[in-house]
Amino acid sequence: MTKKSAQNKALQELAGVAHSETTNKSVIAALKKRRQTKPSTDQLIGSILQGNITALSRAITLIESTNKNHSEQAHDVITGCLPHANKSVRIGITGVPGVGKSTFIESFGKHLSNSGKKIAVLAIDPSSSITKGSILGDKTRMEDLVKDTNVYIRPSPSGESLGGVARKTRETIILCEAAGFDTILIETVGVGQSETAVHSMVDFFLLLKLAGAGDELQGIKRGIIEMADSIAINKADGENIRSAKIAKVEFNRALHLYPKKESEWTPKVLLCSALHNKGIDTIWEMIDKYVSLTQENGYFDHRRHEQNRFWLIETIKDKLHADFFNNDVIKKELKHQIELIETQKTTPFAAADYLLNLK
Amino acid sequence: MTKKSAQNKALQELAGVAHSETTNKSVIAALKKRRQTKPSTDQLIGSILQGNITALSRAITLIESTNKNHSEQAHDVITGCLPHANKSVRIGITGVPGVGKSTFIESFGKHLSNSGKKIAVLAIDPSSSITKGSILGDKTRMEDLVKDTNVYIRPSPSGESLGGVARKTRETIILCEAAGFDTILIETVGVGQSETAVHSMVDFFLLLKLAGAGDELQGIKRGIIEMADSIAINKADGENIRSAKIAKVEFNRALHLYPKKESEWTPKVLLCSALHNKGIDTIWEMIDKYVSLTQENGYFDHRRHEQNRFWLIETIKDKLHADFFNNDVIKKELKHQIELIETQKTTPFAAADYLLNLK
Repeated sequence: MTKKSAQNKALQELAGVAHSETTNKSVIAALKKRRQTKPSTDQLIGSILQGNITALSRAITLIESTNKNHSEQAHDVITGCLPHANKSVRIGITGVPGVGKSTFIESFGKHLSNSGKKIAVLAIDPSSSITKGSILGDKTRMEDLVKDTNVYIRPSPSGESLGGVARKTRETIILCEAAGFDTILIETVGVGQSETAVHSMVDFFLLLKLAGAGDELQGIKRGIIEMADSIAINKADGENIRSAKIAKVEFNRALHLYPKKESEWTPKVLLCSALHNKGIDTIWEMIDKYVSLTQENGYFDHRRHEQNRFWLIETIKDKLHADFFNNDVIKKELKHQIELIETQKTTPFAAADYLLNLK
Repeated sequence: MTKKSAQNKALQELAGVAHSETTNKSVIAALKKRRQTKPSTDQLIGSILQGNITALSRAITLIESTNKNHSEQAHDVITGCLPHANKSVRIGITGVPGVGKSTFIESFGKHLSNSGKKIAVLAIDPSSSITKGSILGDKTRMEDLVKDTNVYIRPSPSGESLGGVARKTRETIILCEAAGFDTILIETVGVGQSETAVHSMVDFFLLLKLAGAGDELQGIKRGIIEMADSIAINKADGENIRSAKIAKVEFNRALHLYPKKESEWTPKVLLCSALHNKGIDTIWEMIDKYVSLTQENGYFDHRRHEQNRFWLIETIKDKLHADFFNNDVIKKELKHQIELIETQKTTPFAAADYLLNLK
């Protein structure tokens, strides 16, 4: 419609006639006020405990913030939520890119949701500070799950160090549990030590693998198989079924090489096809059995206590190391001492003594 | 002879005739002086470089001493020896008790000695502070080797911590190399992390195993197989040969599970019978090949540099941890914070922050 035609319209407004406002100013003001007013710590805790997702997301954002005031509020919210946390099953899921982690989580999450579970999907991806959250960042990969009101998805926090990312994720677990999520899925890709970090914050560790052609056991990262409570061979469908079954035998043999686990659980190798929702129920049944076994024999609680102690000690050590090695004098002298060691003018021990005396 | 008959002897001494002393007082004085005078640092270094075993042992005793003056002299001796060290092949040997380590080292050591090598046999046994040096302590287990002038055997230093024992052993290696020993064997049993410590100070890591009945891959300690450059199945003689061959296949399969080593070396499984000196020469030939390969591709030197950096950083970290966790206030508060964590009143991270602020 051109300007001219508009001016010639029958509905042209006559001067002097008052219209009622199409937008209510008092509503706008109230909305603006609500947007600006940050909820108090107690309000946040109260809302989280009622399962309010907005409050949960807001609190997680506080955890992820580098602002000191935010950190302090986050600390108080976490402390308030703590007595209501811990009542969940925490499951770690790992596997190389291409193994179908997103599809698996989509299928597995829907199965759990249909069984009446409330699922939080988190991720640990220390590379996300660069790639801006590659894992779970693209939620379109989990279309159905995103729409499910029983499911809460949160991409990996960013952070300079794995330690920082891991801390934020562990604190996020507490909030999700307090908000009523009873099943926590934590996804990771094999970046650096991220699997170890995830393993040390979950009850059950699931390794997703593919049946490849022939030599599929090659190139398994240090210790990953040893950490796994189960290996699920994904994409076991169509022409892949035969090779998946062969892989199952090989992985069973590989698992057999390790000493019996403290949990008294014998790791299982299962086949599944996340794309076709096949074998997903069996995987959940297995995890359920694991939880029953370890809750009965006391390992479940024992492990969570161990994990708490681990994170306490690790956090302290990380800080001690950072304080020392990030010191400018030490940085410069460390380089020099390494040169002296390499030219056989000092030993690593004498160099260590020298550096320790500088601080 | 009775007193009486002695008095009636023809050779009875006449009064007033002077005898020459049967012991020369000046010689005794000189000997006493020599025993009391500690050699100077320069004298020690000079003697060690000439291959003097007494000087070497004396310097190692200085390293092992907890006396501050001794430590300072040890430091100076090591620094003086350093430019002459590093020219050796360092071989780590591990295996559970009963696998025949002493017999293996006896046989292997003799083979090397016969080939013109000079061998130092050291040990890392962090438990030796309690058991007073169980490994190598009983040198009678290596009867022939002890008598061999090409071989120097030194039991594990004692020490409260593995770190302390490892440091002393690494410093001892330097002195042995400076004294002309070109092959250093370092024995350990699987006590705690001692294998990892030995692995991080040797060029080649040999794992001794036995062929058992059936399930011999069970119960392999975390990471030991992954560290091994070779597995030698000992006692492969008589009726054991069949099961040893089966074990060889299984261990080969187990080694196959790991990613290719940075050294580009493919770990080998060999059979031997140390008691019957069988297969020992083949093991040395293999190590020789490994050394050639890694010296050519640069890994040999690269690894030693990496090891130096590892020990530098580890020593610093150990000291930082000890300073913090041995502090009396921290000790008491750590216990309290762990209680708060377990009763869900704080998180590991908040507790860590709290403790770090105390110091």
